[in-house]
Amino acid sequence: MDTRTATANIGVVGLAVMGSNLARNLASREGNTVAVYNRTYARTEELLAEHPEAGFVASETIDDFVASLAKPRTAIIMVQAGAGTDAVIDQLVERFEPGDIIVDGGNANFHDTIAREQRIAPTGIHFVGAGISGGEEGALHGPSIMPGGSAESYETLGPILASIAAVAEGEPCVTHVGTDGAGHFVKMIHNGIEYADMQLIAEAYDLLRTVGGLQPAAIADVFAGWNEGPLESYLIEITAEVLRQVDPATGRPFVDIVLDQAGSKGTGVWTVQNALDLGVPVGGIGEAVFARAVSSKPAQRAAVQRIVNSRPTVQEAGTSFADDVAKALYASKVVAYAQGFDAIIAGAEKYGWDIHKDRIAKIWRGGCIIRAQFLNRIAEAYDENPDIATLLEAPYFAQAVADGEAAWRRVVATAALSGVPVPGFSSALSYYDSLAVKRLPAALVQGQRDFFGAHTYKRVDKPGTFHTLWSGDRAEVEVPGH
Amino acid sequence: MDTRTATANIGVVGLAVMGSNLARNLASREGNTVAVYNRTYARTEELLAEHPEAGFVASETIDDFVASLAKPRTAIIMVQAGAGTDAVIDQLVERFEPGDIIVDGGNANFHDTIAREQRIAPTGIHFVGAGISGGEEGALHGPSIMPGGSAESYETLGPILASIAAVAEGEPCVTHVGTDGAGHFVKMIHNGIEYADMQLIAEAYDLLRTVGGLQPAAIADVFAGWNEGPLESYLIEITAEVLRQVDPATGRPFVDIVLDQAGSKGTGVWTVQNALDLGVPVGGIGEAVFARAVSSKPAQRAAVQRIVNSRPTVQEAGTSFADDVAKALYASKVVAYAQGFDAIIAGAEKYGWDIHKDRIAKIWRGGCIIRAQFLNRIAEAYDENPDIATLLEAPYFAQAVADGEAAWRRVVATAALSGVPVPGFSSALSYYDSLAVKRLPAALVQGQRDFFGAHTYKRVDKPGTFHTLWSGDRAEVEVPGH
Repeated sequence: MDTRTATANIGVVGLAVMGSNLARNLASREGNTVAVYNRTYARTEELLAEHPEAGFVASETIDDFVASLAKPRTAIIMVQAGAGTDAVIDQLVERFEPGDIIVDGGNANFHDTIAREQRIAPTGIHFVGAGISGGEEGALHGPSIMPGGSAESYETLGPILASIAAVAEGEPCVTHVGTDGAGHFVKMIHNGIEYADMQLIAEAYDLLRTVGGLQPAAIADVFAGWNEGPLESYLIEITAEVLRQVDPATGRPFVDIVLDQAGSKGTGVWTVQNALDLGVPVGGIGEAVFARAVSSKPAQRAAVQRIVNSRPTVQEAGTSFADDVAKALYASKVVAYAQGFDAIIAGAEKYGWDIHKDRIAKIWRGGCIIRAQFLNRIAEAYDENPDIATLLEAPYFAQAVADGEAAWRRVVATAALSGVPVPGFSSALSYYDSLAVKRLPAALVQGQRDFFGAHTYKRVDKPGTFHTLWSGDRAEVEVPGH
Repeated sequence: MDTRTATANIGVVGLAVMGSNLARNLASREGNTVAVYNRTYARTEELLAEHPEAGFVASETIDDFVASLAKPRTAIIMVQAGAGTDAVIDQLVERFEPGDIIVDGGNANFHDTIAREQRIAPTGIHFVGAGISGGEEGALHGPSIMPGGSAESYETLGPILASIAAVAEGEPCVTHVGTDGAGHFVKMIHNGIEYADMQLIAEAYDLLRTVGGLQPAAIADVFAGWNEGPLESYLIEITAEVLRQVDPATGRPFVDIVLDQAGSKGTGVWTVQNALDLGVPVGGIGEAVFARAVSSKPAQRAAVQRIVNSRPTVQEAGTSFADDVAKALYASKVVAYAQGFDAIIAGAEKYGWDIHKDRIAKIWRGGCIIRAQFLNRIAEAYDENPDIATLLEAPYFAQAVADGEAAWRRVVATAALSGVPVPGFSSALSYYDSLAVKRLPAALVQGQRDFFGAHTYKRVDKPGTFHTLWSGDRAEVEVPGH
């Protein structure tokens, strides 16, 4: 073991693409000296050879790596989530001192992050779970960063993360989200919203193609046009790019040669599962996750296609159909984001996080997949009144939905009649209508539940809890103690 | 401790309503002698006094209770799920011998049941998690019973459970579902389907009222009529009863005085969470769970209702609107059940259960909340071909959906235009369309994922895994090792 000078203010463990890009990003910012360590040293040597300009402080052993870090030692772990992360954490905990900071920059489940923080807290070492969004490019050029952990750790960590984060309208896309698992929780919700956004875009494309009769290149133009207006976003932008792409091998539109079975990595599933735990309806995200699952059931799809004799006649698209679809997309998107922020609010309440919704909207404006102008409107809404019951009541969004409502209804109706699957659009519309109507048939559900299970009900005209003697004389009795 | 003769062939621990009703049911069947035990003896004495005809063998201590059981000792635990169940299990495990049988008849999470079975297996005692459906009435007069556990335990337990189960078309509503947690898993899916079925009925009611312009009493007649046809089921039957009910206090329709906020007990949430783990799309169940959650957000509902200036004009209902709604309901119901059975199939595969789908459909024909004629059609479909990829391809259901398809589309379109929330109907229709169309926009989603995250894609025209160099010259490269 050599005796090194502790010169690095930040270290990165794990030098696969995400880790090495993050390390290069850190090294490129003034004031940072970056220590790097990888289990296999050959990978470290490769990185050093490729990027001598980074001035990395490289170590062959974990002891050297730790010795190369100035105090408080700060290391970001960028390895496969799960057992790999725990192994590195253990190595660092053994060698770090109170006040040092271990950051897990992987895609950990926030429940694991909470558990790890609790396990490490007694050592006096800070453990920070940080969601990092933006993929490989983001890691290199500026991601959106969502760190949890203690406020104290953020004093050291904040400036380092701010130095590498994406910048949106002059502000770095990083904020201290909240304690322990808050960062990974918010990153999870980000991904859930991303699923919903992508599904809604896919439905818009399908409608323009199937009902609108447009070819992919023409739809690319429509999306490019949308990207100049309120729908402006990274996802709309790249959708235009993907739709414009021509397959070099066949000359056909790229989107037509791609197998239509969508994969997923699990954070969408986590979002819905946790929203269910929190009692937050996130139908937009749920339908997006299910839509990917349906697409990946070739045997079921083939079976149903075999038995279907005829498909419905596609409705005629009016001249303003593309505008209608744009409005339906925007309104549905507002719903999906409203649901995602509801999940953040409920998570913050359950896990005791002081999350500033406006700051979350702001750090998503750059670096991450769902970056969009739109997020400024969300930040403004929560900045103006952090206690709104739903984003849908914020004046800007209320107006946007009101403006698009008729078009939204026409699009969903047209899709239903034409046989175009629009689980996202229609779930969002039903959610909006569920909030907007004065009475829901949930009253009937309560009646059924009282009938078969004596689950009791409340009344609209007086307090108390009641049960009807359904198998008796059908009188109503008040149930005490509820 | 008295020295008793072991005379009882079955024991029940926990004498709250479900437990005492089950004990009374057991005692009323020829051949059974029923031992009973409750932590608080006063409750046992009460039961003995109320039901001397049952001939219960009562014990004040758990030791006496165990001594009163003939070998192999068989006891059904009917206490609150969770810690209470574990405490009783521990007491019995201490006193039982290899070959004895402990049945948990509560609403346990099947993951807990699997863990308990593993924990107890080394003792040689059989642990059986049994789902029991039908509520208090079912427990007393004949429930639908879904036992898991070992095949060996079912040799003793089967005849006892068969003696008390509901009978449908001459067959007792009980079958050995599969090993360890299979019974509680299938009971969970039953409840998930129940959520979907109730939500679909609620939407049908809402449409008949809001679009059809019918009053609750008239809708009760419609439902009573439906109960004579293919929709015949317990839930349709009691819906008519609930809708016909007049509130004694106000003279108003009962359904109008009930607060429209639906509660839930958690098994719907579990169903969706586990389906997500299994990768099975269960949008019909998901939307039903979310619909209850939305209804129970009064602040959000009030906020949106405040900002809504005008609601859409309700579409005119044609003369055959009620028939259209019936067809939409039936088709949506087929989808919900198809999704539920898909979850059973996926669960059986993941957890290694040999589940006979036709037998599950059969034991749900009586005793439980979703009992219906309809289940005969499901049993026939799986009996004819257990390997169908989805219930939707079974000839009977394919025909039923084809017959109702146009009406289903009209109903969803009408609801969208009229502002009636139909998350269940529209999710089911989108699911059907997702399976029925030749191409899904999932191809675009794969393109987006490849663009921002290099997630790769497959092609329709050749094997292999590919990536387009989106930030380079946009050539396609084959990715080896996938």
